[in-house]
Amino acid sequence: MHATVNRIQPVNFLAGEEARRYLDTLTKPAGSLGALEALAIQLSAMTGELRPNVAAPAVIVFAADHGVAAEGVSAFSQAVTAQMVANFVHGGAAINVFARQIGARVEIVDVGVASHLTEPSVVNAKVRHGTGNMLVEDAMQAYEALAAIDAGIAAVERAQNAGTHCLIVGEMGIANTTASSAMLAALTGESVADLVGAGTGINSVQQAHKITVIERAIAARRADPKAPFDVLAKLGGLEIAAMTGAYLAAAAQRLPAIVDGFIATVAALTACRLCPAVRGYLIFGHRSQEPGHDIALAALAAKPLLDMNMRLGEGSGAALAYPLLQAATAMMREMATFDAAGVSDKAKP
Amino acid sequence: MHATVNRIQPVNFLAGEEARRYLDTLTKPAGSLGALEALAIQLSAMTGELRPNVAAPAVIVFAADHGVAAEGVSAFSQAVTAQMVANFVHGGAAINVFARQIGARVEIVDVGVASHLTEPSVVNAKVRHGTGNMLVEDAMQAYEALAAIDAGIAAVERAQNAGTHCLIVGEMGIANTTASSAMLAALTGESVADLVGAGTGINSVQQAHKITVIERAIAARRADPKAPFDVLAKLGGLEIAAMTGAYLAAAAQRLPAIVDGFIATVAALTACRLCPAVRGYLIFGHRSQEPGHDIALAALAAKPLLDMNMRLGEGSGAALAYPLLQAATAMMREMATFDAAGVSDKAKP
Repeated sequence: MHATVNRIQPVNFLAGEEARRYLDTLTKPAGSLGALEALAIQLSAMTGELRPNVAAPAVIVFAADHGVAAEGVSAFSQAVTAQMVANFVHGGAAINVFARQIGARVEIVDVGVASHLTEPSVVNAKVRHGTGNMLVEDAMQAYEALAAIDAGIAAVERAQNAGTHCLIVGEMGIANTTASSAMLAALTGESVADLVGAGTGINSVQQAHKITVIERAIAARRADPKAPFDVLAKLGGLEIAAMTGAYLAAAAQRLPAIVDGFIATVAALTACRLCPAVRGYLIFGHRSQEPGHDIALAALAAKPLLDMNMRLGEGSGAALAYPLLQAATAMMREMATFDAAGVSDKAKP
Repeated sequence: MHATVNRIQPVNFLAGEEARRYLDTLTKPAGSLGALEALAIQLSAMTGELRPNVAAPAVIVFAADHGVAAEGVSAFSQAVTAQMVANFVHGGAAINVFARQIGARVEIVDVGVASHLTEPSVVNAKVRHGTGNMLVEDAMQAYEALAAIDAGIAAVERAQNAGTHCLIVGEMGIANTTASSAMLAALTGESVADLVGAGTGINSVQQAHKITVIERAIAARRADPKAPFDVLAKLGGLEIAAMTGAYLAAAAQRLPAIVDGFIATVAALTACRLCPAVRGYLIFGHRSQEPGHDIALAALAAKPLLDMNMRLGEGSGAALAYPLLQAATAMMREMATFDAAGVSDKAKP
């Protein structure tokens, strides 16, 4: 991790300013493409190029289990994590469908699924068989959290070697909204009750129970809110650590990363707390229905591209946002200027 | 027009309900794909199919000029309408770029550009050389508005014969936010000052002038607010009439239509006032920065898919939203069910 963090440079604001000036020469009223123009400026700042290329995107889904699932905090049983990994392998999950649509390579990385997985196409980077139950012990030891972060970094390096120009990271892990909520409450000081929602679909009684579990875990683990790595290890998850590593690696490689929903944003926040320059390489794909997501977005001063009331994870919301990045880069590459098209700009009567 | 209106049937709610039930069998927490699920249900209701196909999309851009441009209501001169048509023909405008991204056929239809166009690839359906200046005369005679509506219907029929399964209609016409604002104020009774914005980029003094021009035109034309055709003819535009016809034709052909921004939504509202069943065939692509758009959307009880602060027109916001329709249909066609994937649904323990 440390070598990766040391390589991270701030985004190139001059390249962003050059993009801003060029946008005003294109055949459209100045600023009339709104957030798409802001996105183009951001992509230029990340890559240092006036006409960056975001194809092909890569989707990496990190899967792991959570000891705290034993507390009955999720609507689904722990076995579903491994079952969904099999579904990813066979191409039947939402993220597979959306990845095919955008021409993305999909890699599934097991960083800590509880059971032994037999699918040969799953990358085996298992650190341990699920985290410890944070109600009774730290979720991970420091060396385990570090190993999971490094697994995330390694996955991004594989994706970049395969020619990727845009990163989409997703997750699968039953009970991971519980871990993310605990981390977010610890990192921001917000009340647990304000950020816990229905997750994958629990009722209000289960939700009250989930809040109690998280509050008790935070009190018991005594993570240092100013030490993001400590919060990650004690309250987080193996896939959340891997995602944190992936965002660090994306920034180190000047690779635009589209952040998915709640869990991804908590991992992104962790990465930014570890190294604030990471923030410049992040694009936020969508606003999740999970109430904690707004708190995590606010902590990053982030405004997501889509607002579709989704709460699936897997990287699905980030994949749906990718065509907007494609459109922003196509605008820079393909639109005619006022001069070239012989169109009168009001600024040049 | 009347033959088209007579063919319009309400959407198939039973097909929508079947889609809703099927969505809950797919490997995701129930409802977790939010607005994408709502979109899939809507597309099933429109087409009557559980797994509809929205490829390939067709983009039709209607171009026309406005007599009221003489009042200095736009940031650009009237010559820009024809110049932008040339830009469309050469593929350099934003809508060309976004249409290429989504694999859409683009047709440019001249329903009333003031000058004589020479580009052979532009469909010549010119009704007249620009509308009359609504400050001093009706924008169109009834027979002219009807001819422009029929030009829109004919364009959609060409697109459908070419194999289109999703319609995107755009416009180009200097001063057409002025015409649309006048129509919207007349149709809804909202105050002109509340719905006029910067258009393509006028300052506050020009904006005040634009409001006065519109208010005087509305008072002078005395269009009957309950007669949408009368409002369209007296205060509208040839391209707005063609768009109105296009939405009528889309509904008649059970073709999903993605509505673009302010001007398109005013045309959509006009089509829905002429025949309320049209509403079921409309998907709203984006929320424009133009203040009148929210009023037009509210009049249609519409929530757009994207909110990107755009205000370009041409169909650009609708084209950017198209990949979400693709994703919704791919979800229905390609996602595995809980049973098929061997994933435990919490509803079936």
